[in-house]
Amino acid sequence: MNMRKNIPVDFSNVEIRDSFWSPRLDTNRKNTIPTVYAWSEKTGRIDAWKWKPGMKNKPHHFWDSDVAKWIEAAAYSLEKNPDKNLERQIDHVVDLMGAAQLKDGYLNSFYIKLHPKKRWTNLRDMHELYCAGHLIEGAVAYFTATGKRKFLDIMLKYVDHISRTFGRKPGQKRGYCGHEEVELALLKLYNLTGDKKHLELAEYFINERGQKPNYFSIEAKKRGDTGHWAFFGGKENYDYYQAEKPVRQLDEALGHAVRAGYLYSAMASLAAETNDKALFETCKRLFDNILSKKMYITGGIGSKKHGEAFSYEYDLQNETAYAETCAAISLVFFSYRMLQLEQKSVYADVMERALYNGVMSGVSLDGKAFFYSNPLSAYPHPGNMLEEHVKPERQKWFGCSCCPSNVARLLASLGSYIYMKGEDEIRVNLFISSSASIDIKGNPVLVSQKTNYPWDGSVSLEVSPQTPAEFKVCVRIPGWCRKYSIKVKGANIKFSIVNGYAIIKRKWSSGEKIEINFEMPATLVEADPRLRHDCGKVAIQRGPIVYCAEEADNGKHLYDVAIDVTHPGFVVNSDNSILKGAVAIVANACRRKDAGWKGQLYRPCESKLEKFRLKAIPYFIWANRKPGEMAVWLNRG
Amino acid sequence: MNMRKNIPVDFSNVEIRDSFWSPRLDTNRKNTIPTVYAWSEKTGRIDAWKWKPGMKNKPHHFWDSDVAKWIEAAAYSLEKNPDKNLERQIDHVVDLMGAAQLKDGYLNSFYIKLHPKKRWTNLRDMHELYCAGHLIEGAVAYFTATGKRKFLDIMLKYVDHISRTFGRKPGQKRGYCGHEEVELALLKLYNLTGDKKHLELAEYFINERGQKPNYFSIEAKKRGDTGHWAFFGGKENYDYYQAEKPVRQLDEALGHAVRAGYLYSAMASLAAETNDKALFETCKRLFDNILSKKMYITGGIGSKKHGEAFSYEYDLQNETAYAETCAAISLVFFSYRMLQLEQKSVYADVMERALYNGVMSGVSLDGKAFFYSNPLSAYPHPGNMLEEHVKPERQKWFGCSCCPSNVARLLASLGSYIYMKGEDEIRVNLFISSSASIDIKGNPVLVSQKTNYPWDGSVSLEVSPQTPAEFKVCVRIPGWCRKYSIKVKGANIKFSIVNGYAIIKRKWSSGEKIEINFEMPATLVEADPRLRHDCGKVAIQRGPIVYCAEEADNGKHLYDVAIDVTHPGFVVNSDNSILKGAVAIVANACRRKDAGWKGQLYRPCESKLEKFRLKAIPYFIWANRKPGEMAVWLNRG
Repeated sequence: MNMRKNIPVDFSNVEIRDSFWSPRLDTNRKNTIPTVYAWSEKTGRIDAWKWKPGMKNKPHHFWDSDVAKWIEAAAYSLEKNPDKNLERQIDHVVDLMGAAQLKDGYLNSFYIKLHPKKRWTNLRDMHELYCAGHLIEGAVAYFTATGKRKFLDIMLKYVDHISRTFGRKPGQKRGYCGHEEVELALLKLYNLTGDKKHLELAEYFINERGQKPNYFSIEAKKRGDTGHWAFFGGKENYDYYQAEKPVRQLDEALGHAVRAGYLYSAMASLAAETNDKALFETCKRLFDNILSKKMYITGGIGSKKHGEAFSYEYDLQNETAYAETCAAISLVFFSYRMLQLEQKSVYADVMERALYNGVMSGVSLDGKAFFYSNPLSAYPHPGNMLEEHVKPERQKWFGCSCCPSNVARLLASLGSYIYMKGEDEIRVNLFISSSASIDIKGNPVLVSQKTNYPWDGSVSLEVSPQTPAEFKVCVRIPGWCRKYSIKVKGANIKFSIVNGYAIIKRKWSSGEKIEINFEMPATLVEADPRLRHDCGKVAIQRGPIVYCAEEADNGKHLYDVAIDVTHPGFVVNSDNSILKGAVAIVANACRRKDAGWKGQLYRPCESKLEKFRLKAIPYFIWANRKPGEMAVWLNRG
Repeated sequence: MNMRKNIPVDFSNVEIRDSFWSPRLDTNRKNTIPTVYAWSEKTGRIDAWKWKPGMKNKPHHFWDSDVAKWIEAAAYSLEKNPDKNLERQIDHVVDLMGAAQLKDGYLNSFYIKLHPKKRWTNLRDMHELYCAGHLIEGAVAYFTATGKRKFLDIMLKYVDHISRTFGRKPGQKRGYCGHEEVELALLKLYNLTGDKKHLELAEYFINERGQKPNYFSIEAKKRGDTGHWAFFGGKENYDYYQAEKPVRQLDEALGHAVRAGYLYSAMASLAAETNDKALFETCKRLFDNILSKKMYITGGIGSKKHGEAFSYEYDLQNETAYAETCAAISLVFFSYRMLQLEQKSVYADVMERALYNGVMSGVSLDGKAFFYSNPLSAYPHPGNMLEEHVKPERQKWFGCSCCPSNVARLLASLGSYIYMKGEDEIRVNLFISSSASIDIKGNPVLVSQKTNYPWDGSVSLEVSPQTPAEFKVCVRIPGWCRKYSIKVKGANIKFSIVNGYAIIKRKWSSGEKIEINFEMPATLVEADPRLRHDCGKVAIQRGPIVYCAEEADNGKHLYDVAIDVTHPGFVVNSDNSILKGAVAIVANACRRKDAGWKGQLYRPCESKLEKFRLKAIPYFIWANRKPGEMAVWLNRG
């Protein structure tokens, strides 16, 4: 039984030719994937599998995952853009892994090379299963792209080892990983192999999580480890790991945001595979909790530096936002899986919000530098160094360098997120110029999408079934859109709206066009009054794009800028100065004249206001010029 | 040579009978001083001097200072309100100290009882001279109040020991304390004894500070201590201790705010004693740096939790403000000493601002609970516990309990801050109903002040020289005041304004009255646009009192409240509900109606505004009801 109603149309069946995305994907392929490899090599991550005492760059316990995500990204890239050199690089790494793998299937460079007797003794902290999960995803991707089995076989052997090691049978460890990932990877593997063992192992890890007595406590006791809880204020609490209680009891997004996002994604996938309504209800609760209480306007999640974690409800500070790039990516994953279970546009809305804002802000336009944290305002000052996670510039690499390869693999597989299909319907979730071949009841339908989205709200969809047939085309009406029109073959048509999708049911013949126009005005956005950090402020959004003001365009004291909310006087301009084809927005604003403050910090309100035309640029392209102030939320004027 | 132009009129010559202050001083005497003693006793601070192995409550290295400040407060109190029981308590403690003092004069409970061989080996961290300084202040106060010499003699012996131990002669340690305090204490002692040795020792400690090679480095090396710098981001830098460079080179207020305030106070006193213009210029630079870049509107200083320290310029966050009560007190001390050097009203303005706001907020109205940090906005939530210094309620005591006794000693000596005198002038700095006997060229002048300040701007000063004489009465025109009138014997008079003081020069006969009226409207205040945390916001101030809004009066979502800055519609009301005689201010405000937010955090601006009458109360009486939201800065509407 499979509760999944909407089957993703995999990117292998989708060709993207988009004025916005194609240059980004080219940059990803030409710059990001190579730069991730180069840094992985330089820092010892590649050679970790052949490390020997005396060599520098001792393996680190999460390095395997970085390389695995690079392989996954590279494999996706290969599928669309064959590249012998890249394939050789992957094969080289696979060979190293094959040579390193132990006879019993175990594969982890850190433990094999440094602590062979300690493997599986600290699931809480040491990321062994997390690394395994990313390796599995890499192996699935590489097999799918090339048909080469070596890496997949290595991982199947490792998964067998993991299956033998973990479970509820006598002699097995009743553990699960402190950093979720292996669960969703096993579900991907199951989709490839159809082997129930893979499904059951994922199911075991998910269901065992948070059971009492807590495995992490048992394990820590065995190690004689008592020092851990200082980080959590001295209290034994496993919320950080989403392991304080069994997963079906979760009702608030808590703890490390990336771990949470990966777990929730796996839970949604498992619910689909096993028709588990209770688990699906849990996922809905958690999604709603994020959506209505814990998500930045950029789709960023996890506002706290401490634990890279979700803070309490409605606590989304801007300048010190953590909002890790990987966390926004995990929200894309989670939304994508929820959308497979339930065709509600809100899931695609969140996916789109995160993708176009909080994910894309994570990578520079040249694809070679990255944000780990994605703050919503910036005040670069050496004195801000204490908040060392907040950088005014993207960095080339990190000690903990999870984000670069994560962006790379998401972009390289972007095609998968555009379309889904049901039994007799095609679902259009994202608006990206592309063509897709989608099978509807044995009838191949070519969908060809043309748009200048996100800069323009016109979308043309050409629907070409091989044989004329009746089916539904379901087009998402974005949550940001208040007014739109839909025509088929130039004429207004009847359609219903169900859960945010326009359902166009008719008999389709080859080459019939749907013309959609989403009106896309620049819009002032407000935040829930409980979200204290944004009270008294507004943000500018147009279509899915959240805007920000930068010092480079507007000078200093951005915190003092107020938008004229009554007469914003928006002018929407094409602006190629930072990114070709991008759209800037100009608005009426004012700030205080900076005069007469010598020798005092406070005085009766007497400042004159200076009116000026504020220029806002898309948030995701901020910090591509010299470092300066930035603000998404501006005062109401 | 003494550069001090303005001699303070000591509180022994001043009687306060004030509707605002007298109840506060009574509470200080009846509740705060006893509660500090009770907690000191309960926690082992009193018995530290007779601690023996096996007893609980091992002495802690800064405990002596807490007891010393209690003695100082109690001594000031005794002077005005003889109390045999209190005097016995002090004598008991003095006896314990006398018994504990070593033959060579050394006196520190922590080192004597626990580490006798380690004394003077860690001046950087261990507060020995800091404790000595507070004990000296206590001894000076107790001798002045009672004429009893025992404590003073103990301390003179200890100071002799310190004099022998520290200095530039062969065999002496060229050290100084990591926590300044002994410097200003020695200058007080010098004012009592006239013994040059005491002046010279203070001078040595001040001048040696920050010289190269740095004593703290030398000392740490001797101890084999290398672990210290993690706290400071791994960099060897002594700004935290104001010891990165010699004091005359200081130009920015940096490091631990209380230490800085005490050092600057000592520097100002030393400049006065030694006519040291370079040192005075340094003090002016530092004062200006605080005034124009580093002070909260409440007079709080030291915004950072990390190191209880000054942050960089214009970095004064509100919700997580450190703004330690002791730091505001140190600013009172520093301003007070600057005012002795230079009769500029700005010093008295700062003194007044800190006193009526950031100091008085540190103690509850019943005098039995205290804030260590004094944030400018509060959002009580268990999730805010990570910022553990920010409390929504005053606490009865602290592990590091410097603030309670510090408030107590300041209030018990408040009379000293009201008047100063020059050769032929009387200076009125603070407006507090009181009478003072001030000698002008051998002619005793009785000044009698009557006012309902800070609730009302009318001040009546009756000037009664024993013999009619010509001299000046200099009345401070507060920085907050834009309009005022001054009459003598009911008639407008001619007066000049010099550095913010109205100079009334005439021949005075007994009983002549000066009637001053400072117009005291409720006023909206803005902050420098560089102060990003207050941009887009205003505060309400009336006279010297900074106001705040509390949840108890205004409901939740205070962050969303906007004041109508164009038509504030202020109504100033007497309001006895929290504090008898206090004045509340009502103003036009609005906030968004809280509707329609289910399932979303962001939406196009469409909220309706709800107008309401905001009630603001004096900041210093916040949190005297049940915990709730509070905000000093409110949005501009």
